[in-house]
Amino acid sequence: MAEPSFARLSLFLFSFLLLFATYSWVFGPDSSFHVRKTLRSDPKLRVDHSSQQPHHPLDPLTVQEIERVRTILSGHDPGFGSGSATIHSMALDEPEKLRVIQWKKGNRLPSRRAEVVALSGGQSHVMTVDLDSGRVVSDLVNPTCGYPILTMDDIFAASQIPFKSIEFNRSIEARGVKFSDLACITPFAGWFGSAEEGHRIIRVQCYTLQDTSNYFMRPIEGLYVTVDIDNLEVIKIVDKGQVPIPKAAGTEYRFGIHNKPVHMDHINPISMEQPDGPSFRVEDGHMVKWANWAFHIKADQRAGMIISQATVRDSETGEPRSVMYKGFPSELFVPYMDPEEGWYYKAYMDAGELGLGPTAMSLVPLNDCPRNAYYIDGVFSSPDGKAIVQPNMICLFERYAGDVSWRHSEILIPNVDIRESRPKVTLVARMATSVGNYDYIFDWEFQTDGLIRATVAASGMLMVKGSPYENVDDLGDKEDDAGPLISENVIGVVHDHFITFHLDMDVDGPMNNSLVKVHLEKQRVPTGKSPRKSYLKVKKYVAKTEKDAQIKLSLYDPYEFHIVNPDRKSRIGNPAGYRIIPGGNAASLLDHDDPPQIRGAFSNNQIWVTQYNRSEQYAGGVLVYQSHGDDTLQVWSDRDHSIENKDIVLWYTLGFHHVPCQEDYPVMPTVAASFELKPANFFESNPILGAAPFFDKDLPVCKPFASS
Amino acid sequence: MAEPSFARLSLFLFSFLLLFATYSWVFGPDSSFHVRKTLRSDPKLRVDHSSQQPHHPLDPLTVQEIERVRTILSGHDPGFGSGSATIHSMALDEPEKLRVIQWKKGNRLPSRRAEVVALSGGQSHVMTVDLDSGRVVSDLVNPTCGYPILTMDDIFAASQIPFKSIEFNRSIEARGVKFSDLACITPFAGWFGSAEEGHRIIRVQCYTLQDTSNYFMRPIEGLYVTVDIDNLEVIKIVDKGQVPIPKAAGTEYRFGIHNKPVHMDHINPISMEQPDGPSFRVEDGHMVKWANWAFHIKADQRAGMIISQATVRDSETGEPRSVMYKGFPSELFVPYMDPEEGWYYKAYMDAGELGLGPTAMSLVPLNDCPRNAYYIDGVFSSPDGKAIVQPNMICLFERYAGDVSWRHSEILIPNVDIRESRPKVTLVARMATSVGNYDYIFDWEFQTDGLIRATVAASGMLMVKGSPYENVDDLGDKEDDAGPLISENVIGVVHDHFITFHLDMDVDGPMNNSLVKVHLEKQRVPTGKSPRKSYLKVKKYVAKTEKDAQIKLSLYDPYEFHIVNPDRKSRIGNPAGYRIIPGGNAASLLDHDDPPQIRGAFSNNQIWVTQYNRSEQYAGGVLVYQSHGDDTLQVWSDRDHSIENKDIVLWYTLGFHHVPCQEDYPVMPTVAASFELKPANFFESNPILGAAPFFDKDLPVCKPFASS
Repeated sequence: MAEPSFARLSLFLFSFLLLFATYSWVFGPDSSFHVRKTLRSDPKLRVDHSSQQPHHPLDPLTVQEIERVRTILSGHDPGFGSGSATIHSMALDEPEKLRVIQWKKGNRLPSRRAEVVALSGGQSHVMTVDLDSGRVVSDLVNPTCGYPILTMDDIFAASQIPFKSIEFNRSIEARGVKFSDLACITPFAGWFGSAEEGHRIIRVQCYTLQDTSNYFMRPIEGLYVTVDIDNLEVIKIVDKGQVPIPKAAGTEYRFGIHNKPVHMDHINPISMEQPDGPSFRVEDGHMVKWANWAFHIKADQRAGMIISQATVRDSETGEPRSVMYKGFPSELFVPYMDPEEGWYYKAYMDAGELGLGPTAMSLVPLNDCPRNAYYIDGVFSSPDGKAIVQPNMICLFERYAGDVSWRHSEILIPNVDIRESRPKVTLVARMATSVGNYDYIFDWEFQTDGLIRATVAASGMLMVKGSPYENVDDLGDKEDDAGPLISENVIGVVHDHFITFHLDMDVDGPMNNSLVKVHLEKQRVPTGKSPRKSYLKVKKYVAKTEKDAQIKLSLYDPYEFHIVNPDRKSRIGNPAGYRIIPGGNAASLLDHDDPPQIRGAFSNNQIWVTQYNRSEQYAGGVLVYQSHGDDTLQVWSDRDHSIENKDIVLWYTLGFHHVPCQEDYPVMPTVAASFELKPANFFESNPILGAAPFFDKDLPVCKPFASS
Repeated sequence: MAEPSFARLSLFLFSFLLLFATYSWVFGPDSSFHVRKTLRSDPKLRVDHSSQQPHHPLDPLTVQEIERVRTILSGHDPGFGSGSATIHSMALDEPEKLRVIQWKKGNRLPSRRAEVVALSGGQSHVMTVDLDSGRVVSDLVNPTCGYPILTMDDIFAASQIPFKSIEFNRSIEARGVKFSDLACITPFAGWFGSAEEGHRIIRVQCYTLQDTSNYFMRPIEGLYVTVDIDNLEVIKIVDKGQVPIPKAAGTEYRFGIHNKPVHMDHINPISMEQPDGPSFRVEDGHMVKWANWAFHIKADQRAGMIISQATVRDSETGEPRSVMYKGFPSELFVPYMDPEEGWYYKAYMDAGELGLGPTAMSLVPLNDCPRNAYYIDGVFSSPDGKAIVQPNMICLFERYAGDVSWRHSEILIPNVDIRESRPKVTLVARMATSVGNYDYIFDWEFQTDGLIRATVAASGMLMVKGSPYENVDDLGDKEDDAGPLISENVIGVVHDHFITFHLDMDVDGPMNNSLVKVHLEKQRVPTGKSPRKSYLKVKKYVAKTEKDAQIKLSLYDPYEFHIVNPDRKSRIGNPAGYRIIPGGNAASLLDHDDPPQIRGAFSNNQIWVTQYNRSEQYAGGVLVYQSHGDDTLQVWSDRDHSIENKDIVLWYTLGFHHVPCQEDYPVMPTVAASFELKPANFFESNPILGAAPFFDKDLPVCKPFASS
């Protein structure tokens, strides 16, 4: 057989690399940074990142600061100059919470520090770099098991390694796949015991791009490669024999290329219009002010988007009151349900293994976000410490969906027609991350009644498995093995998604919060006391320690969960509180000794509350890649610290079971789930009682574009 | 004491009457009907109901038909002429399902029949009136226990009865309430054993309207009256002694009258705009056609709004395919959690006791429904058989909320930027019913990907209880008794809401549907077979009988629930199906022997599937008022009919627990919950793969109104 041309290989390997870790990243000359030009971004929103300064203690590192970290690191460890040490993630090391809370606009910023997670000499380093003093003030080596987020270099290297193997090349050729059509992705390794310890490994799984851009639907099943990323060598190749590669027909999804007719009537143009412009302001690039809300927003390499210091104005006094100090998706856990070779390790932790920031590509105006959206860029560090700009990564927009925020119809007083209704207008902050095949859209939605809704919507491509079968009838007893047949030779492998949110609630201040479990307990009425035989009674339990707050939801044992500040009482004496309201959810059913579940142990409960600990940000640990699960939310919570009247953090895990169906092929209609944080005796009364209705005289006058 | 002036009493009693049963009903001279003039309705949508003809077998009775029923009934039973017999509900008696399905536009309509539920001589009659032959073809007397929906006359009568009692009048006067400020409502009786059998009874509970239109927040607690509606006599008065009447301050909610400042920045006008107009058509008043959907919609006295014959076009062939024959809220059940005198019987069944149609007042344009909404009127019968028009009772509108129907970002092929995203535009059908204090907004939302979402949003006023306490600190151990203190002297009584939907699914036809329970079962991996120790495996169980389909949802024992047509296979052999996807939910925890739960037994499970039976429409039975629970979904399901490969009906109960909080006072911010019906192997693949994105050139150009 002919060895594949290296030049051609590089071309498409470069593509895989872009796919998994770089997306919009483009590198300029050593001393500068570049913004990848995006065709559809709005030029008027572009900011000159090279001159940006931080304005707020929580503002992300600027381009200049990232460059300075690089200089400082080069002085600390020559590896950062030579390239033998690599930066895997870099973010602002946020100042102590109390310093941030006490800071006022106009004050000098607390000292700026960077947290850098790096690999040097095969060791994981978690470093704190002080930008003011120019020193590395802390350098923890292997603080826990596990490795940092993968870099694009790791993935690039991994993708190249199989081609060193004659066996691999022969297997590809034997399947009749042209090397120029080959597209390989790199499923993560997970952790399955000592055999795979001591070096970073990754899997390589290939597809064919022939006749489609949707290579995910054309797996080259049965060929599984494990490589060592550090030593650049193949560890294991398994070729279980050929499985038919599913056909390309019907898989293309790009507009204008997929030409199948859509059997539906034309939908006239529709748009949320605000001819006076949006009502929110973004001050200094990150402080958002809208209606009665203010919050800080930033892009983050790991969490994607972070909301901080969310405050809402009191409806009586107008004072800003703290609700949530910090909220972000702390980890994603996506275990697949196939114990077979080539699939058993597929249990992704996308935030800690890949990062939700660099995979959040520029949003598509008018389609990912409506007109009048405001876009915010991400600024990250490349593996060699150069600044990278991810344009239009976050959008902010106001939403009016035709819904009602409150209403009542009444005709009590004769000749007076009471039909009062108030429209619901909300503010949405959005990011969409494409972690390989899946796309996740993260929304934070703020309502004027004080409610915050977090929504995760999933779309993109399934991770499918090639199958010898073309029809369900041919499957016989094998039907249920890995999942349902969703197209000829394509099995949609059953999997779960768990997204664990870090919700650092600071209801009316950081220090004095408690979790109150409001239990709805069925009471039996003693005979003769009432014609009723039963009713529900509310009993409140204050969680004393973290183990009291390891909570599994149950439809038939219902609780409300309130974070209250017992030191802030309402006029009538109720403590100020916010409830977490779960929506539709799914629980992890994997055994607790199953390696993926050990690492994803934060999905063992739907709700947790822990004592605030600055280092406990990521539910799966700081170093997640090949982690053993010794630094998870479960481990922290089992320490059982006191959480009564303390600075506490609420964690919520939102889950989906996904049994794929034909409609998920070749790209999935969006599926969404959400939870809410809702005021509960936080305001004295309905805070939007005095809100105005819409009047026709205020609404815009619109013409079709063509006729204007 | 002075007896209250009857003239003044009538004035406000007339108001209560309007509040509870008539709303927009106005009666004209004997031979005609009138439309109540609503200030804010859109005159261009008005139709001339007097000349309307039915165009479709499911079209509701027209004004002329209602008048004809009245004539026929007068010939059948002289009581209908004299007024001694009363019509409690009237609706089209729908033709046999197969006749409706076989009917094509242009065919003659199947014979038109009315189902009339009436009281005559103290007996409940369920009658079928044939309009073509002019005969009462069926007249079932007391087919089950229970009485028909209350009429406005019942409620009017009930409200007057207490004033016959000197004890009642003295109690009111003793509390210092002016008779001119008195507002009395009529909580229903429930059923608590033989003492209350044999006559129709109702409770009367009074409030004061002094200084507020929001009398619901000013209960005259401790005074409870039970009256016999048929004999017009007081059965029981309980005066437990005076409880302070909560103050009026802060309770007013009408715009411009409540003048408290709202502490928030101005929100600029925002509107969903469609300068080319909406994309849906409403043919012959009731057939809605939009995108790939077609369905019949009508107002109904009992269910409020009924969706029928929902069909979606096949994405491959364009053929219309049946999804759901009929969907509507079959019953609402709202048990309060206070076993005390005056409260134990509060367990409402609003559809069967009051009707969701007449209580659905005209929607408020721009606020209940957005611009470009299309309004549909309801046409009902008055108790004496005259036609009544409920204007603008239902609205239809297209929604674009800035969301995404599918997306994927990819950069695989060098120099090609793949970021494909499709906006989500949906069609919403909405009704808002004000059943006394509570407002329920019912939405049916249709997506182009085949998904149907039903949403129930609750707003309006709490049913509150007067309390001697002004502050939580004064309550001591009493805190949890009926519910939390939410304002001075106001307890928000804990309660549940259960809305049971009748979902007559006809997936690809009526005759051959089955329920498949798709179980996600945790498997233990045998040692040594895989590095994994567990995974989930999908196993499918076809429900054989109704008892197999009495389903309680469980987070830790998850199933998907598919209604499939085993006779309609996809290309690869999967049966066509639709899944029901629960959202956030709550279960009834009341004991099964508790009288309200016996009557509301349809809330014993979240999901049920029954064999189609024409007479099993209403989950709480045909005659719900004072019913004993012998005609509920539980009773039918326990008959355990076969449901495999049959015409079957899916029932879903959506629930809320409601522990009130201060924010619910004096009017509640909307709380919503929903469920979805989603295609599962119904389409060969994603049916909206070929949908177009939004382009700037197509979107409208808008100006602020003031400047236009």
